[in-house]
Amino acid sequence: MARITKDPETRRKEFIKAARELFMEKGFEQTSVSDITNKVGMSHGAFFYYFKSKNDVMKAVICDILNYWRVFMVDLVANKDMNALEKMHLILSMSIESQNVKHDINEFFKKEGNAVMYQEHRKKSREIISPLMTQIVEQGVKEGTFNVEYPKETVEYVGYILENLGDSLQAAGNSDDYQRKIHALEILLTKVAGLKENELHLID
Amino acid sequence: MARITKDPETRRKEFIKAARELFMEKGFEQTSVSDITNKVGMSHGAFFYYFKSKNDVMKAVICDILNYWRVFMVDLVANKDMNALEKMHLILSMSIESQNVKHDINEFFKKEGNAVMYQEHRKKSREIISPLMTQIVEQGVKEGTFNVEYPKETVEYVGYILENLGDSLQAAGNSDDYQRKIHALEILLTKVAGLKENELHLID
Repeated sequence: MARITKDPETRRKEFIKAARELFMEKGFEQTSVSDITNKVGMSHGAFFYYFKSKNDVMKAVICDILNYWRVFMVDLVANKDMNALEKMHLILSMSIESQNVKHDINEFFKKEGNAVMYQEHRKKSREIISPLMTQIVEQGVKEGTFNVEYPKETVEYVGYILENLGDSLQAAGNSDDYQRKIHALEILLTKVAGLKENELHLID
Repeated sequence: MARITKDPETRRKEFIKAARELFMEKGFEQTSVSDITNKVGMSHGAFFYYFKSKNDVMKAVICDILNYWRVFMVDLVANKDMNALEKMHLILSMSIESQNVKHDINEFFKKEGNAVMYQEHRKKSREIISPLMTQIVEQGVKEGTFNVEYPKETVEYVGYILENLGDSLQAAGNSDDYQRKIHALEILLTKVAGLKENELHLID
């Protein structure tokens, strides 16, 4: 019987999807190339046709996640059924929830040799996410719920906080520290966005 | 005539001081070990007795700057003649003014191979500066000029902005962008610290 051949881009995506799932499940360090090829049911040769190394597939995974966020944000900006406050809520709760996922990526970035890639990733994330976040803040200003004089610059500044939020929450020693950090962030964002008190709830 | 011998720590400090001045004047890349030894009037051999490389003396320079900030902040916290708002003004205006100096350090940190050191430097800076900044915010809360419910956490979050301020201001395309960024920061900090409007002025 003839073997079913898939187009190269489909195969490449299968590897990326499998690697992403394994990195999240077992961690980057604990995942081997064999784990990835076994999961996809392909040979090592096929893997190395698409990727130079495990690092290389991690880069593709990160690119994939960034692309996911870009598509999500573009859709969210265009959404006519949600107000800016609802959009901001959604983004913030997703950011906080995704901290577990980001854990492995942060581990990866902190390794010697990956730090430059980390700077580049942050820069690229900012370039993609910031203009979209700015549009949501501008929507909120028009709707009268936000009071922000400099949306672009304010989004940039708040972005520096959100970039570090994952590491910061992970460093929280216990549940009390975690709750304090979340509550402090709620207050900070409420003030900076000029929202009414108790309008923003980051966790239930 | 007998050569005047200095104790090793004094010599080491002379090298660090000369290197620091040269890095600021010419930039890290453009400074050679010979430039440093010429400035101090010492041999290459003496330089390599104290430092493994130009990178190594840069590390010492960075450590020196951090130590300068630590001593400055400890004195400022203990200063009974200044209120918290005056202290915060001083810190912020010094941070903004020091951006030219930090330029070379940022250049250095962005080079391949120095990125891990960069993460460590940021971590160390936070550990040293944050508790001292928190004390100043607490002073402001006691004095009734600041309104911050979670001083420690808020200082951490604002710290992430200030860490990136140098790069951000340098990326400002022109004087208008620069002014917008400064003004946006004034507004953000005014809101976050719960100050009265126009109480904070970052540039004249």
